[in-house]
Amino acid sequence: MEKAIVLLSGGLDSATCLAIARSRNFECYTLSFDYGQRHRCELECSANIAKALGAARHSVMSIDLRQWGGSALTDDSIDVPAAQGDNVMPVTYVPARNMIFLSFAAAWGEILKARHIFIGVNSVDYSGYPDCRAAFIDSFRRTANLGTCASDEGWEWVIETPLQAMSKAEIIRTGSALGVDYSMTVSCYNPDSSGRACGICDSCALRKAGFAAAGVPDPTSYQER
Amino acid sequence: MEKAIVLLSGGLDSATCLAIARSRNFECYTLSFDYGQRHRCELECSANIAKALGAARHSVMSIDLRQWGGSALTDDSIDVPAAQGDNVMPVTYVPARNMIFLSFAAAWGEILKARHIFIGVNSVDYSGYPDCRAAFIDSFRRTANLGTCASDEGWEWVIETPLQAMSKAEIIRTGSALGVDYSMTVSCYNPDSSGRACGICDSCALRKAGFAAAGVPDPTSYQER
Repeated sequence: MEKAIVLLSGGLDSATCLAIARSRNFECYTLSFDYGQRHRCELECSANIAKALGAARHSVMSIDLRQWGGSALTDDSIDVPAAQGDNVMPVTYVPARNMIFLSFAAAWGEILKARHIFIGVNSVDYSGYPDCRAAFIDSFRRTANLGTCASDEGWEWVIETPLQAMSKAEIIRTGSALGVDYSMTVSCYNPDSSGRACGICDSCALRKAGFAAAGVPDPTSYQER
Repeated sequence: MEKAIVLLSGGLDSATCLAIARSRNFECYTLSFDYGQRHRCELECSANIAKALGAARHSVMSIDLRQWGGSALTDDSIDVPAAQGDNVMPVTYVPARNMIFLSFAAAWGEILKARHIFIGVNSVDYSGYPDCRAAFIDSFRRTANLGTCASDEGWEWVIETPLQAMSKAEIIRTGSALGVDYSMTVSCYNPDSSGRACGICDSCALRKAGFAAAGVPDPTSYQER
């Protein structure tokens, strides 16, 4: 069975990505990052999703991005706005995050001889985050071919982005068909201490609209207001 | 004053790299990694070198590569041979290391608005390590341009590799002229608990030959044998 590294954030997209990788018969090694994000529930969700979807092993890499600040997701002094509007760069952008995550995935992949890396980037996120673009992903692939044993050993990395062209509704329909339990996933930027979603941040809005458009009941646990 | 991120390993090459960056009037932010390497003295050396050469700030990023093993430098079950000979890939290769290190440098650089990243790769190391090649460095630069705010904001990363074409002797001559105290640096793969070099591993052999060829007294503290 061929091996794959699957980046897992605890969110809806990466859970769907893992389900797709499993449906293609990959032995999946899931990788999450404890990067000082405010919401610890994301890490619990990731571990639960990995187990539920039959990952061969789940690994958590701790990286202390908090020491540098610079993003609302890692810096307590920057507030996450309820809705961000059309700023050039959202305050929730974490500098170079996907480059760091993919580099670790390549490191683990090289050790495991897993040549496929799944990452749940998609065109909806692309609007604000430079490291979700197809051009970045393809450039990363070339860089990884050069910066690991791949070129010397005569093989190439495959960066799988099955969600790249999907709408949120299509992602939800695909994952539902593959048996993903979306109540296990968290998307909200401002969840409460029990992990319940705020229902109003950009990420919640996108998710809600996705379930509505997919015609799938939204299993998200929302805070009472 | 323009800012630069300088990757610092505690070794001779990266210390020279920092001295070069300082001589070019960069305000230097040095970055070292605690990646579970066996030799903790490397981290002390890095902090001392940063201070001695006037870095504006020194940062240590801890990343637990030990959980995955795969290299003699991070896995206690793999011995570092006294001399490796001409293996295709040295056991001291750490998978994707420079890709991970440069990604973090880009993250910090983005936060600090430092567009220059110094890394002390050189053609002597190239013999065994894929992530020291010029082609990899250039590909990383393109990837970083795409995966950070650079392209949206209309600027480009500059990855500075001043040592790329230098012999070890030239590196030592350059650093000596810039006042680097090489007794503060460590290159050995098998130092003792006081940080004294073994004098016989590949890295020691390269360093010794470099001082001899440069005609510079070798200040390295070697173990008595």
